[in-house]
Amino acid sequence: MANNGSSITAALVLVGNELLSGRTQDINLNYVAKRLVDHGIALTEARVISDVAEVIQSTVNELRARHDYVFTTGGIGPTHDDITAENIAEAFGLELIVHPEAERLLRQYFEKRGVEANAARMRMARTPYGATLIDNPVSVAPGFKIENVYVMAGVPRIMQAMFENIVPTLRHGEIVESVSVICDLPEGQLAEPLEKIQDRFPAVDIGSYPGKTSDTIRVNLVARCADQPTLELVEDALKQLVDSLGGNLLD
Amino acid sequence: MANNGSSITAALVLVGNELLSGRTQDINLNYVAKRLVDHGIALTEARVISDVAEVIQSTVNELRARHDYVFTTGGIGPTHDDITAENIAEAFGLELIVHPEAERLLRQYFEKRGVEANAARMRMARTPYGATLIDNPVSVAPGFKIENVYVMAGVPRIMQAMFENIVPTLRHGEIVESVSVICDLPEGQLAEPLEKIQDRFPAVDIGSYPGKTSDTIRVNLVARCADQPTLELVEDALKQLVDSLGGNLLD
Repeated sequence: MANNGSSITAALVLVGNELLSGRTQDINLNYVAKRLVDHGIALTEARVISDVAEVIQSTVNELRARHDYVFTTGGIGPTHDDITAENIAEAFGLELIVHPEAERLLRQYFEKRGVEANAARMRMARTPYGATLIDNPVSVAPGFKIENVYVMAGVPRIMQAMFENIVPTLRHGEIVESVSVICDLPEGQLAEPLEKIQDRFPAVDIGSYPGKTSDTIRVNLVARCADQPTLELVEDALKQLVDSLGGNLLD
Repeated sequence: MANNGSSITAALVLVGNELLSGRTQDINLNYVAKRLVDHGIALTEARVISDVAEVIQSTVNELRARHDYVFTTGGIGPTHDDITAENIAEAFGLELIVHPEAERLLRQYFEKRGVEANAARMRMARTPYGATLIDNPVSVAPGFKIENVYVMAGVPRIMQAMFENIVPTLRHGEIVESVSVICDLPEGQLAEPLEKIQDRFPAVDIGSYPGKTSDTIRVNLVARCADQPTLELVEDALKQLVDSLGGNLLD
């Protein structure tokens, strides 16, 4: 089953050569994924793309047509390699403007800190025409929203703060709850009866995830479903399965 | 600049609902990214997709047409949610067969460990017709290669072992070297002269990455280029830039 059962779908676009060169270990996907689950929105795909104009444009245009929400991270700083804002504007066929409120916020912030509001810094005030700002409580330079696309910073602390400002404005779907049954049986032994449970409960997304220990077996059976009573039935069935095969529940 | 300058490009497809639900923090992208850089292959995109038949098929077909190499991780275990092998076969229009050598290896392994070679376990012997196996020194169940697509396990330790068996078989491009100049100057101050350096050296990919500390400024200027003498010129230029702006080199 796809989509964690939610009818509201989202895509995440991680923009940045540093992720594709291995310089930076991404942690933004995991954060956004968890928070969307909390709010009943199904993250159904994520893409990591390079800082290339046409790639940013085509990716955003493809995904915004297909999803209720598209979130992007990265490429909205002051340096020459920050090219997300201009390419989001281009993707929408909109003019890139200096957003008056963003300009005001940035000038105020720079003045207070005694730093020059130079051209590079003021690049961070640019948005597509008609965009609304996403507040950045960490370092002021805002993200922005245009239609169903939300453009955020790449630095995790800033991204998270921006994202928390976005979440209350999103339509929330039915919350998909999950249960986790961890046991010491090998997947190869669990697989066939597990599939029978999956077949009995087609509305539940059941996944089997082997742990990373070497000789000790540790398999995590995860079930996801928006309907709590159904989920409880599945949890019972999974526990009975482990018991019937002579396994032990872990944790 | 895109592609780290290499003319050999690759895409990575991470298959798994557990990444999109936030249950699992991916570390496979970072591993593959670094190792490809080491071998002069440019990872230009990565996708995280759900365990959905048509999504796996369309993603693989789109990417294999565009890249020299496509690597996939996840979905080749024994349980019902492991559907990568059958969908790679479907994507190629090939029959899914029981690979004789994979079957032999698995039967031998199961026999030695005294576990039943049941139908679920033997699912792991299935490959598209004509695939060659990728050795799995960790848990035997092999990955496979069909044309330019390499299908690996999702568990990082197994994925890494499989990937290390693949690497020597790949065409290697010109190695892209990188230098890193870390300083205590804000990006907003560095940006304009940094862009001038980028303009002077268009063959070099210069990125600016602010650190995650809160009040201390720590910006990492990273330059990537296959030509070592050019890279040394850029490193000097970056250090001179930091010095001329009154900053300090860190680390």
